[in-house]
Amino acid sequence: MEERGSISIHTENIFPIIKKFLYSDHEIFLRELVSNAVDATQKMKRLASIGEYKGDLGELKVVVSVNKDAKTITISDNGIGMTAEEIKKYINQIAFSGASEFVERYKESGGDKNQIIGQFGLGFYSAFMVAERVEIVTKSYQEGAEPAHWTCDGSTEFAIAPAHKETRGTNVILNVAQDSEEFLEPARIKTILEKYCKFLPVAVEFEGDIINNPNPIWTKQPSELTDEDYKSFYKELYPFSEAPLFWIHLNVDYPFNLTGILYFPKIKNDFELQRNKIQLYSRQVFITDEVKDVVPEFLMLLHGVIDSPDIPLNVSRSFLQADSSVKKINTYITKKVADKLNEIFKKDRTAFETSWEDINVFVKYGMLSDDKFYEKAKDFVLLQSVDGKYYTIEEYKALTQANQTDKNDQLVLLYTTDTDKQHAFVEAAQNRGYDVLKLDTMIDSHFIGMLEQKLEKTTLKRVDSETVDKLIERDEAKESVLNDKEKESLKGIYETAIDNKNMMVEVAPMSPDDAPVIITLPEFMRRMKDMSKAGGGGMMFMGDMPDTYNVTINANHSLNQRILNAKEENRPRIARQAYDLALLSQNMLSGASLTAFVKRSFELIDKE
Amino acid sequence: MEERGSISIHTENIFPIIKKFLYSDHEIFLRELVSNAVDATQKMKRLASIGEYKGDLGELKVVVSVNKDAKTITISDNGIGMTAEEIKKYINQIAFSGASEFVERYKESGGDKNQIIGQFGLGFYSAFMVAERVEIVTKSYQEGAEPAHWTCDGSTEFAIAPAHKETRGTNVILNVAQDSEEFLEPARIKTILEKYCKFLPVAVEFEGDIINNPNPIWTKQPSELTDEDYKSFYKELYPFSEAPLFWIHLNVDYPFNLTGILYFPKIKNDFELQRNKIQLYSRQVFITDEVKDVVPEFLMLLHGVIDSPDIPLNVSRSFLQADSSVKKINTYITKKVADKLNEIFKKDRTAFETSWEDINVFVKYGMLSDDKFYEKAKDFVLLQSVDGKYYTIEEYKALTQANQTDKNDQLVLLYTTDTDKQHAFVEAAQNRGYDVLKLDTMIDSHFIGMLEQKLEKTTLKRVDSETVDKLIERDEAKESVLNDKEKESLKGIYETAIDNKNMMVEVAPMSPDDAPVIITLPEFMRRMKDMSKAGGGGMMFMGDMPDTYNVTINANHSLNQRILNAKEENRPRIARQAYDLALLSQNMLSGASLTAFVKRSFELIDKE
Repeated sequence: MEERGSISIHTENIFPIIKKFLYSDHEIFLRELVSNAVDATQKMKRLASIGEYKGDLGELKVVVSVNKDAKTITISDNGIGMTAEEIKKYINQIAFSGASEFVERYKESGGDKNQIIGQFGLGFYSAFMVAERVEIVTKSYQEGAEPAHWTCDGSTEFAIAPAHKETRGTNVILNVAQDSEEFLEPARIKTILEKYCKFLPVAVEFEGDIINNPNPIWTKQPSELTDEDYKSFYKELYPFSEAPLFWIHLNVDYPFNLTGILYFPKIKNDFELQRNKIQLYSRQVFITDEVKDVVPEFLMLLHGVIDSPDIPLNVSRSFLQADSSVKKINTYITKKVADKLNEIFKKDRTAFETSWEDINVFVKYGMLSDDKFYEKAKDFVLLQSVDGKYYTIEEYKALTQANQTDKNDQLVLLYTTDTDKQHAFVEAAQNRGYDVLKLDTMIDSHFIGMLEQKLEKTTLKRVDSETVDKLIERDEAKESVLNDKEKESLKGIYETAIDNKNMMVEVAPMSPDDAPVIITLPEFMRRMKDMSKAGGGGMMFMGDMPDTYNVTINANHSLNQRILNAKEENRPRIARQAYDLALLSQNMLSGASLTAFVKRSFELIDKE
Repeated sequence: MEERGSISIHTENIFPIIKKFLYSDHEIFLRELVSNAVDATQKMKRLASIGEYKGDLGELKVVVSVNKDAKTITISDNGIGMTAEEIKKYINQIAFSGASEFVERYKESGGDKNQIIGQFGLGFYSAFMVAERVEIVTKSYQEGAEPAHWTCDGSTEFAIAPAHKETRGTNVILNVAQDSEEFLEPARIKTILEKYCKFLPVAVEFEGDIINNPNPIWTKQPSELTDEDYKSFYKELYPFSEAPLFWIHLNVDYPFNLTGILYFPKIKNDFELQRNKIQLYSRQVFITDEVKDVVPEFLMLLHGVIDSPDIPLNVSRSFLQADSSVKKINTYITKKVADKLNEIFKKDRTAFETSWEDINVFVKYGMLSDDKFYEKAKDFVLLQSVDGKYYTIEEYKALTQANQTDKNDQLVLLYTTDTDKQHAFVEAAQNRGYDVLKLDTMIDSHFIGMLEQKLEKTTLKRVDSETVDKLIERDEAKESVLNDKEKESLKGIYETAIDNKNMMVEVAPMSPDDAPVIITLPEFMRRMKDMSKAGGGGMMFMGDMPDTYNVTINANHSLNQRILNAKEENRPRIARQAYDLALLSQNMLSGASLTAFVKRSFELIDKE
């Protein structure tokens, strides 16, 4: 009672789907047809090398030409050609991989199968994305083969007839459809060829010029190449870019096949960071410059080429992420990059330091996103002091240990996010003999968090988060010139003058050389606010909270003693001017307050 | 001699391609199967309505269930069902559109064909993206129909046998493959259903709950709906968003079919701008939230839904851009948005002004990118004065004409990009009776350029580009208290004190109430630099040029007369302090210079 059968596909319905949906960009037709032509010439070469063909190979090449009047594009090769029977087998039956049979037949004779597997089959039909009629004129390399002429108008009906053709090889002639006449522009064809065919392994000629470099350096062994070769190849890829910092030659056969060269570019500023500068090839055919998922996220900023037949093409992103070859490639590239950086660091520290500004983003991003990379990079990641010197983490700990360990035995590392805006605080810390790190890029806020997590007994504090006395707490009490009553009175004068409940006024004894008034925003407070701004950690409510600053009045500064001795009516004015100057140091005086301050200051010097 | 034939497709080769490449997201299988089930029930309804079915319809619905132990997902409907013959016709023959035949048969009976065209055919096979074996148990609505059981293991072999099924309809049972067991999690299924099936027109049940709203308001007529309906639908779409400002109900039949509702969201700041908040549906089936190319670029920030069976799906971007329906949809949406804004502006100016902060980016972006939109929007685009008042372009011209027309009969509109940082300059202009516009968003720099291009005899100047006397040039000469020799001497003192060749010192008579020293950056200069920063217009070289500022010394200010009368050795110090205060007003004093200035100022008040 049960019935069994085979699911059938109605050709007339599936054909438009193949035509329309196979590729999203119509220009791909040229890549497919030229790749097929290249495959045909490479098969020829291979047949000769194993003795199956004894004739003259000639100069193997592919010629692309456009005839605007006839509205045709022709792709010619002097490859193996086809007999009428082969056309019926390879062209008339869609999705029958001609190449796989070829490989089957010749695999016993050894050699790299990847070099000869083409995609003859589906790719050919991409011709119908732009052509209303496609013709093939072809003559097989086999002795006595009859040339054949195949025609198809994009329906599923074809015609095949004898042809006149003297020489071995295949001409594919596209009679371009009206809606695709853009492809009859030689400039357009040239652009497409340069995009997809620039490094094809057989010469490709267009308008008398060879448009490709058949032996790009990534196909060679590193030992054959000089620095100059790498640099000039970079220039070939990115004619308008500055020379690269350094490069990594990728070359692996097992467990996946991957070659390529990754360059570390010179980056001038954050805005210049350009993703999608790595080109992905498959056997020297350009595929895409979207290498997301193939290359680890943090290395997307590198430049260069990757060539791998093992990366599945034309598949969805989610599929790509899950693909095991892709995962392995990812891990391999990460490891190679870490090893290369470590090698340069060890061999030429000066060069490494000179490049640090350009590479620190990669390195930090990598450490944050990949634990394995962290483990390798922690020994060569550099910290830069505001005086321009570079240290590894270990070196910096050694440098600061003696002077910057607090009473709880915590090492306190000081940093600035803006040497210009936090200048007064940097200067104060340096006067105290502390070292200050420059951690001023977007990624540094995350990097700081990571350092604290990974390093034991170590805290990082922004240089303006406390008065210099309290940045690194010691067990020493400072003498105060003012007694408690005077302090209380001074506090009151300032509170009245400031009149802002988010400013926590405190009078403390400091060095007479420190500023009379200092405004700080506690580290914890600032980090909470930053997190809230970044929208993380459920801290949204913090965003609406006003900043609460500490205003520290230096009890030992002569100005403050002067205020206590000044006439009652003058006290708030002097205190307010001193407070405004402290605001200025923190870049917090602006708008109407700044205008009023400037006006008052002009009057002050006018009266002087 | 010529031979003709038909191109054939080898099923066993094409089948994996359909399975793998048809959809990029595997979760789509559920959308396809539930849509098919919905179509089957809708066809049932239709048959009943035209009298082809006389039995009891029952409560039409689709039930989705998951059995984790049996590793199955089942989609059941009480729609038209299929006979064994229909299975062979509709299921076993891929790419044969069952729905199209159905439509063919019933189109004479009138009604909206769009409501019944399904995609039965290719969509069904998406089941094999997640299932290793798919079964169909189905019973046709036709009297005396025998239920049938179809099984296929993902190869092209199927089996069909009689089945036991009491009720009309179809059950599709997926035996989930090992690599897709994630889909056996009820939470995952629920998420997918809520994403794709939320507004399907027939009840969809999962775990006892109806997960969809079968009659979303966009399928209704605007006349049936209240404001409350629109607001609560918005809440349904975006539960966490604030209420929308206003909305546009799209409803067009010809020359394309499109319904939908677009909402203007409340936007708090530039960072919140979220694209991809518009959902695209096709006959109430969710397709994507990437509506680029369907919706004009400048309206990508709107929220809401668009439902159109006329937008080609599953096609490439370049194809979409060229599609004529898509172009018409684009134009239609733009026009509707402009008309709606104009209507609100006319009907309720206060509401329009209140919303301006939220909508000005749309409007300006639209005016910049679409000439037709500009023509409509130029009458309702608003300019905001720093005092908070709003004006149309015509109103603002009328307001400023008398007081801000210069000696060359040019109307000079003044603007600030930062009321806080340019406070001193805004105040000076206002004191002179000028009005100042607030043009402080990213888009405003382009908007300023556009206004100058479109408005005749009108220039825009940033308020700090000249001293207030020169912002709007008049034919009046100011008296100078200082004679030429004194001016020359004053200039020399300042030049020595400033010691910076990028500061062009000039002594000019101004009001004694103006500041003693004013630093300005000429409009032309600033715009060149801005352009260069944005990387446009081949101005890259400008980026490396230092800014050249004008330093204007007010010959009529008492401080400058004082400097001339001061002791020789004190002159540079006072001039420097005055210059530093001018830098402060322009937010140009920072880093070491600011620290030194603050220190000097502390000393100054300490000596006072």
